[in-house]
Amino acid sequence: MLGEIIAVGDELTSGRIVNSTSYFAASHLFAAGHKIAHMATVGDEAGKIGTALLLALGRADFVVVTGGLGSTSDDITVEAVAEALDRPQTFYPEIFAKIKECKAFAKMPSMEKMAWLPSGAEVLKPGEKMAGFMLRYEEKPIFFLPGVPNQMRELMLDRVLPRLATWKGSSLSLVRQQIYKVFGLGEAEINTLLAPLEEQGDAVRIGYYPMADEVHVSLTVRGETSREAEALFLSNEEKVRAALVEGLYGEGADTMASVTGALLSKAKLRLGLAESCTGGLMAHEITGVAGSSDYFTGSVVAYANEVKEGVLGVQQQTLVDHGAVSEETAREMARGARKVLGADLAVSITGIAGPTGGTAEKPVGTVCFSLVTPDSQQEYTFHFSGKRPLVQAKAATMGLDLVRRYLLEHG
Amino acid sequence: MLGEIIAVGDELTSGRIVNSTSYFAASHLFAAGHKIAHMATVGDEAGKIGTALLLALGRADFVVVTGGLGSTSDDITVEAVAEALDRPQTFYPEIFAKIKECKAFAKMPSMEKMAWLPSGAEVLKPGEKMAGFMLRYEEKPIFFLPGVPNQMRELMLDRVLPRLATWKGSSLSLVRQQIYKVFGLGEAEINTLLAPLEEQGDAVRIGYYPMADEVHVSLTVRGETSREAEALFLSNEEKVRAALVEGLYGEGADTMASVTGALLSKAKLRLGLAESCTGGLMAHEITGVAGSSDYFTGSVVAYANEVKEGVLGVQQQTLVDHGAVSEETAREMARGARKVLGADLAVSITGIAGPTGGTAEKPVGTVCFSLVTPDSQQEYTFHFSGKRPLVQAKAATMGLDLVRRYLLEHG
Repeated sequence: MLGEIIAVGDELTSGRIVNSTSYFAASHLFAAGHKIAHMATVGDEAGKIGTALLLALGRADFVVVTGGLGSTSDDITVEAVAEALDRPQTFYPEIFAKIKECKAFAKMPSMEKMAWLPSGAEVLKPGEKMAGFMLRYEEKPIFFLPGVPNQMRELMLDRVLPRLATWKGSSLSLVRQQIYKVFGLGEAEINTLLAPLEEQGDAVRIGYYPMADEVHVSLTVRGETSREAEALFLSNEEKVRAALVEGLYGEGADTMASVTGALLSKAKLRLGLAESCTGGLMAHEITGVAGSSDYFTGSVVAYANEVKEGVLGVQQQTLVDHGAVSEETAREMARGARKVLGADLAVSITGIAGPTGGTAEKPVGTVCFSLVTPDSQQEYTFHFSGKRPLVQAKAATMGLDLVRRYLLEHG
Repeated sequence: MLGEIIAVGDELTSGRIVNSTSYFAASHLFAAGHKIAHMATVGDEAGKIGTALLLALGRADFVVVTGGLGSTSDDITVEAVAEALDRPQTFYPEIFAKIKECKAFAKMPSMEKMAWLPSGAEVLKPGEKMAGFMLRYEEKPIFFLPGVPNQMRELMLDRVLPRLATWKGSSLSLVRQQIYKVFGLGEAEINTLLAPLEEQGDAVRIGYYPMADEVHVSLTVRGETSREAEALFLSNEEKVRAALVEGLYGEGADTMASVTGALLSKAKLRLGLAESCTGGLMAHEITGVAGSSDYFTGSVVAYANEVKEGVLGVQQQTLVDHGAVSEETAREMARGARKVLGADLAVSITGIAGPTGGTAEKPVGTVCFSLVTPDSQQEYTFHFSGKRPLVQAKAATMGLDLVRRYLLEHG
């Protein structure tokens, strides 16, 4: 279907934040087979919002509007739409009941505002305390989503895309899509590996989405029947796997931490960490997965050398002879972590995240790792490009990837 | 002046890349005192580009268009504009001469295309091999910039902003803006506190931007002269501070971690952590600040109870009697961290991040903290709402805030 996206907010027109919600909507709508010819961003002014919406409805089959659904005085999307489409605001008692459950409600009577929607609005997640609704206008759906990125994304994936996929009048052929997650290969490298798949015409589309430290690849397949789509999807998925091999660590909602955690769980092994330059990020990624206490014992974030010595038992002489960023220090850190944390496997990370601390011999981005297991120990040194947060992110993901690759071989 | 921004490119409407050029243009135009009421993104279709431009010219005093100026077949901005504004394409021999100097020219005869511009075009950097020109339409300037971010940014700063600043008929009022960062107060609560400031008309605008675990507030002030804008800004800033008190932790580029770090640095105190449910996030936030090794010694991420006992010295009896999530356990964790990490201050965090592990007495979101200092120790219990990542984020920020508030009182 032909769609348009409208983002609302002075924070966008004043360039205070980058418009990530329209980008998210466009990429997923495109991947699902829709076409977006026009995207608009307007400030918090009712007239502008209404005009933009009417223009979009005149051109497109559906519209996604983000932002301006909150309870503060600058949230005026509902008011603007009620006026522009002549759908007077109506009180939704069931929304009000949900809002009243919030502890914050007593302090903030303005929250009642969120229970007033344009007449005819269908709430997208009625059971949850989340703004977001749909209106029909001349049989065209208009989706109103919060501007808060994580809520917007959740509603986009759980509600907007499924509703559009089955919308009557949709001339969409059946679509099957999967996201593949790749670590350790660059976008251009992946592009080269998958180039042959792009020569199948419109029925098969490959998308490349570079993230901070990894690349997500989308495979979108269309067919006239679900059987046709499924068959074409399976043959292409096989080709993707064959091309990316071990660089492909997961798909869909997988993260490097969830995939590595599942392998640890399956092998019944417990992991411990000794982190210096990542400062706890690898531990945080692991513990972001619910149930990680089954296979993760803990991490010693040994930022100061005294902690490397006192808690992890690194020899002072090792630090003097080789420096804190060295495979020798990494080796002793990993051994120490395995012992004091009561773990089966341990990973250590010590490096120079920058912006300062680099030398000619060990420039910013140099990171040493050690992986110790019940019957082996191996050190690694990598050079990561980018600024401090990116070096930390790449190092943490690499630490997980070392465990993942070890378990794939030995698990 | 009132401006509009149009970004051209299928890579934007298909969500392949995030639109960073419009964001860059908006933030710099806003800071220079211009107002952007509308931004558009259109795909590589001549009709759409022309329509978007004519619409923008009907509403605004100037327009910035980015993208579609290259030599490939999908670069059609010049063609679209020549048609829409009736400015037939004209051959620019001086541009052609520059292009022929390029080594790549022999291989790509299509580059000649870049020497054809709409009649009346003024090249923005005539001496350089860079696309980018200006057209006048009814005395309104239209700037056409390449979509390549670094070229676009260079022309924006070196050409567009200076030309607009001296454009005749410019009735620019001067703008002063600041961002205030708030923790511990909700968006609606802040809105209530700052409501009186919103009653000053167009000269003073307040924006509310809820982030995961905090709220950013923008104060934007306009005046006819810089002196007027400055005076109005200072009186309003004072009111913002008076209203938000200690909930206001920083401004501009400050983060909770950078503000707390600066206070630790000033007090010459070193911090250590014992983290359970945050899994290293608080340490990661602290070490995200360059130079944090001056005041941060490390963290023991004690996910397993064995680590709480073995590394931090929590008594087994305490865990049995009160549970891992208790003020008693938090107290012993903080003491142990202070000792083994050689720190002056230590914070411990132990809680139930969810989704499982909650009980009637200690529901998901219950988090216990302890802050131990050279001469005091205090425990706290908070209940955070939201899903696992949000509970973790709120707990980590709260841990930092406890240190910040202690140092404000005792530093």
